[in-house]
Amino acid sequence: SRGAPVFSSKDGNFTFKPRGRILADISSTSGSDYDRRNITVSTLRQFRFGGVGTVGDHLFYQFEADFRRNSVEVVNTFLGYKTKFGKVNADIRAGNLITDRGIDIGTAATANPFITTNINTIALATQGGRAYLMGIAARAGQKNWHWSVAVHGDALDSDFTRNDHRMFLSRAHWNPVLTDKAIVHVGGWAYSEHIPAATASVSVNQFISGALNNSVQVNVATLNGATGSKAFGVEFGGVYGPVYAFSEYGERHVKGGPAAAFDTAKFKTLSVNGGFWLTGEKPTYTSVSGTYVAPKVLNPITEGGSGGIELVARYEHQDSSGAPLGGTGWAATAGVNWYLTNYFRLMLDGIHWETNNLTGSYLGKDSGNTIAARAEVAF
Amino acid sequence: SRGAPVFSSKDGNFTFKPRGRILADISSTSGSDYDRRNITVSTLRQFRFGGVGTVGDHLFYQFEADFRRNSVEVVNTFLGYKTKFGKVNADIRAGNLITDRGIDIGTAATANPFITTNINTIALATQGGRAYLMGIAARAGQKNWHWSVAVHGDALDSDFTRNDHRMFLSRAHWNPVLTDKAIVHVGGWAYSEHIPAATASVSVNQFISGALNNSVQVNVATLNGATGSKAFGVEFGGVYGPVYAFSEYGERHVKGGPAAAFDTAKFKTLSVNGGFWLTGEKPTYTSVSGTYVAPKVLNPITEGGSGGIELVARYEHQDSSGAPLGGTGWAATAGVNWYLTNYFRLMLDGIHWETNNLTGSYLGKDSGNTIAARAEVAF
Amino acid sequence: SRGAPVFSSKDGNFTFKPRGRILADISSTSGSDYDRRNITVSTLRQFRFGGVGTVGDHLFYQFEADFRRNSVEVVNTFLGYKTKFGKVNADIRAGNLITDRGIDIGTAATANPFITTNINTIALATQGGRAYLMGIAARAGQKNWHWSVAVHGDALDSDFTRNDHRMFLSRAHWNPVLTDKAIVHVGGWAYSEHIPAATASVSVNQFISGALNNSVQVNVATLNGATGSKAFGVEFGGVYGPVYAFSEYGERHVKGGPAAAFDTAKFKTLSVNGGFWLTGEKPTYTSVSGTYVAPKVLNPITEGGSGGIELVARYEHQDSSGAPLGGTGWAATAGVNWYLTNYFRLMLDGIHWETNNLTGSYLGKDSGNTIAARAEVAF
Repeated sequence: SRGAPVFSSKDGNFTFKPRGRILADISSTSGSDYDRRNITVSTLRQFRFGGVGTVGDHLFYQFEADFRRNSVEVVNTFLGYKTKFGKVNADIRAGNLITDRGIDIGTAATANPFITTNINTIALATQGGRAYLMGIAARAGQKNWHWSVAVHGDALDSDFTRNDHRMFLSRAHWNPVLTDKAIVHVGGWAYSEHIPAATASVSVNQFISGALNNSVQVNVATLNGATGSKAFGVEFGGVYGPVYAFSEYGERHVKGGPAAAFDTAKFKTLSVNGGFWLTGEKPTYTSVSGTYVAPKVLNPITEGGSGGIELVARYEHQDSSGAPLGGTGWAATAGVNWYLTNYFRLMLDGIHWETNNLTGSYLGKDSGNTIAARAEVAF
Repeated sequence: SRGAPVFSSKDGNFTFKPRGRILADISSTSGSDYDRRNITVSTLRQFRFGGVGTVGDHLFYQFEADFRRNSVEVVNTFLGYKTKFGKVNADIRAGNLITDRGIDIGTAATANPFITTNINTIALATQGGRAYLMGIAARAGQKNWHWSVAVHGDALDSDFTRNDHRMFLSRAHWNPVLTDKAIVHVGGWAYSEHIPAATASVSVNQFISGALNNSVQVNVATLNGATGSKAFGVEFGGVYGPVYAFSEYGERHVKGGPAAAFDTAKFKTLSVNGGFWLTGEKPTYTSVSGTYVAPKVLNPITEGGSGGIELVARYEHQDSSGAPLGGTGWAATAGVNWYLTNYFRLMLDGIHWETNNLTGSYLGKDSGNTIAARAEVAF
Repeated sequence: SRGAPVFSSKDGNFTFKPRGRILADISSTSGSDYDRRNITVSTLRQFRFGGVGTVGDHLFYQFEADFRRNSVEVVNTFLGYKTKFGKVNADIRAGNLITDRGIDIGTAATANPFITTNINTIALATQGGRAYLMGIAARAGQKNWHWSVAVHGDALDSDFTRNDHRMFLSRAHWNPVLTDKAIVHVGGWAYSEHIPAATASVSVNQFISGALNNSVQVNVATLNGATGSKAFGVEFGGVYGPVYAFSEYGERHVKGGPAAAFDTAKFKTLSVNGGFWLTGEKPTYTSVSGTYVAPKVLNPITEGGSGGIELVARYEHQDSSGAPLGGTGWAATAGVNWYLTNYFRLMLDGIHWETNNLTGSYLGKDSGNTIAARAEVAF
């Protein structure tokens, strides 16, 4: 577990554990035909602070706010009730929740093998492109499967004069093989979204060279008059010894209403990634939730070791050509992660990307290279 | 006391206790003649984090920020000095303070018997409608009375180019009867507000079906050129066994200056509420400050019980007809609160409301019903 | 050390210490020929919350956000690695860092002898006037010297479509005399700033009667088309028994590019301050970093004493006449600080100021007096 201590009340009925993370990033792009895409940017990619805890055996809570942009974004903030049905763990939670929509989106940024989560995370989100939404979610699972169902509303805001969006979401995963040496993961999810009439139009543009270069995107015409969307995703992958590989494919079909200039706008997104631990650690996939978690570094520097080293690679493809003036793009990433401890990591990613846009400031085929680096601590 | 542990320095001269609360809400309105009033909205009604502590026997501090709207609102954040004169407790505090202006406004949201504080809280506030203002407050009291005097400036902002508003405020309460079985509460407050000339006009609109439907309001014409206001409130109520009932009435008279199109704009606000504990708990009124506090649940679920259940009801009336184009409105609420523990609560409120507006988007007599629900934890 | 306790994991490899500060201020100005400069304003000058800690012997982290304006400003938030080369302490850190640009800017607000840091802090900052910038900094030192070098980018923002600014910065200080009774401090710093072409114009206006009256400033014409700047500062001062005095002088030369209406805009800034402890405490200068730290109060009120009292005085001068339409101004401050404990302080400053502006709303020679007061706690 993380280093931060857990505090308990005297009767043990209440626990509280502070949590936080600091991700200091820099990203530099070159090689684009457009000078304004060749930029160098630094930031805190995440700066979160919060806590988790329990009240008795069944009640639990978690809260976390992100201050990375000198503004607030509330992330995991909910309360819940958990219980057991035989060997099945089950819980229900209400509040601001991560949408359970794949392997990467359910993985903490501090456990993701790459500096940026895969393209599926945002490209297949509901209108507004948010990973966290208000809602109620129920979940059941054992050590080799889980199933979640949820109903979500809007992201947190101060707009109390119109209906929330509404999203019905479900995801499941199963591990048909689960041994010490080998794991196979199959999973999938689907959602149905209702967009209220009063919603402003939204641009569905997707960055594809990391989150710190917003000029490198696959662009689409602004969508007006959408009434809802349906989306699905499939997941497949596994672990064999120190090697792992996972893939996610998904589609989102946005439906235009009477006022829209389009009937259906389709978005297709693919991500394939894999990695290998040079220093012998086990891959960090967890069969409980079908996501990545932090590693158990064999020789952390706090015990005189030199840490753990992981080599990673990823291919991502975005096809927005089924939407008005929709472009296409892909990115290939190679990276190395040096874990000084389980929760202190240095990362280096090299990305080659290509976009082919029909709208926006950067038209036609263009390609370039982005180098991204991160220093990161979580507690 | 709350579950969160108190941390001390080794010499005991410094203490620190983390505090927080998560209130996950949903509200759904139907029955209005105006479709845009019939909306369903979810949000974190509050998401606060902070701490309280002491430095030696006399110095104390408290701080708390609310992130509920994906933005920051600093709430209780002050430092102070406390002492005793014989049996009288006294303190003085400086910082961002709650304005001591009634029973409900002085009650923590997690102790209020209703999902939304009563209408008096905002309807009788100084210009801007804020419950928290910068200021200095002194307070004295014993177990059956308290008296506070304060001078307040603005809410926190970044406007350092013009004068703060200025508010002189005083409140007192007394319990002529205070036994184990019966309590009588009488109280009152008054303030005088100076509005500096550079102040922009402000709309004094009051929501009346809970805080999550901003389309259901009692509206007033925008007030330009106000130079100040005077307001007062009276409080009466009590407890008898497991039953309690309290009422608050108040008026605010806004004075127009030479540039104003009105001489005086009057607002009158009434709230009457009561409750009953099905499971035998004592009503949560505290005679120290004349407000509500958290209950002592007899059979919390952390000890195998089924929690405490409270039935509540409230009537509220807003009369803004003494102001230019001012409307009227009322709301009747019935609710049930299920306390799983002292600080973990589920709430359900049903509200029938009526508005009669002369300005704004929803003119004339209109009525509807709002169902609101909350899951809530504090630590 | 501060009162807040330090929490450790069981194996001692992880520590966490919560930190915070509340600074409640009021400022009142009179005597100006311009009524709109004669204003009274209150606010939380700072309201910060965060933590510091270590991971093993070499890794460390710190994070802190300021909520003073009902918005977020991320301040010290970084992670780092520290080690020893013989007797030399060295560290490297990455994240959102204070720019090591003088005595005052490196001093925590809760340790500064004055309510407002000296004029050099903001007047000599890079474009945008920020004390904290993203970056990487290395530092080496012993008990009587330190040297830092850093490269900085932008302040935290959400602008990922253009290049960051870039700043190379270095500072060093040395104590040729360092005894129990006497200390001599000499120091200096310099930076080179590159301003990317896409940068919007910036106004370099400097407040000179404290941070709570933004109408009392030394003004300059808006600078368009700047391509970079160079700046330097020199520091001299020392301690003798209970008396101390320090001075800082610096210049910033902003270079105009082809699109600019100026060739070079020069800013010159001087600050001289001193103080004396009536109650016998040692001046709070630390030779490790060449800044002020919190005092060791001899008779804190937590031990029945009456606290420590410090008398302070400061003269500041701003000369922006080397820039287009640049004005001049000066301020003289006398103050008294009453430390109830090491970290609980009441402050009172009286400031006489004069400005002579060629642009802005307050032209020509004008002078006035500002009274500022603060109650402050840090943990």
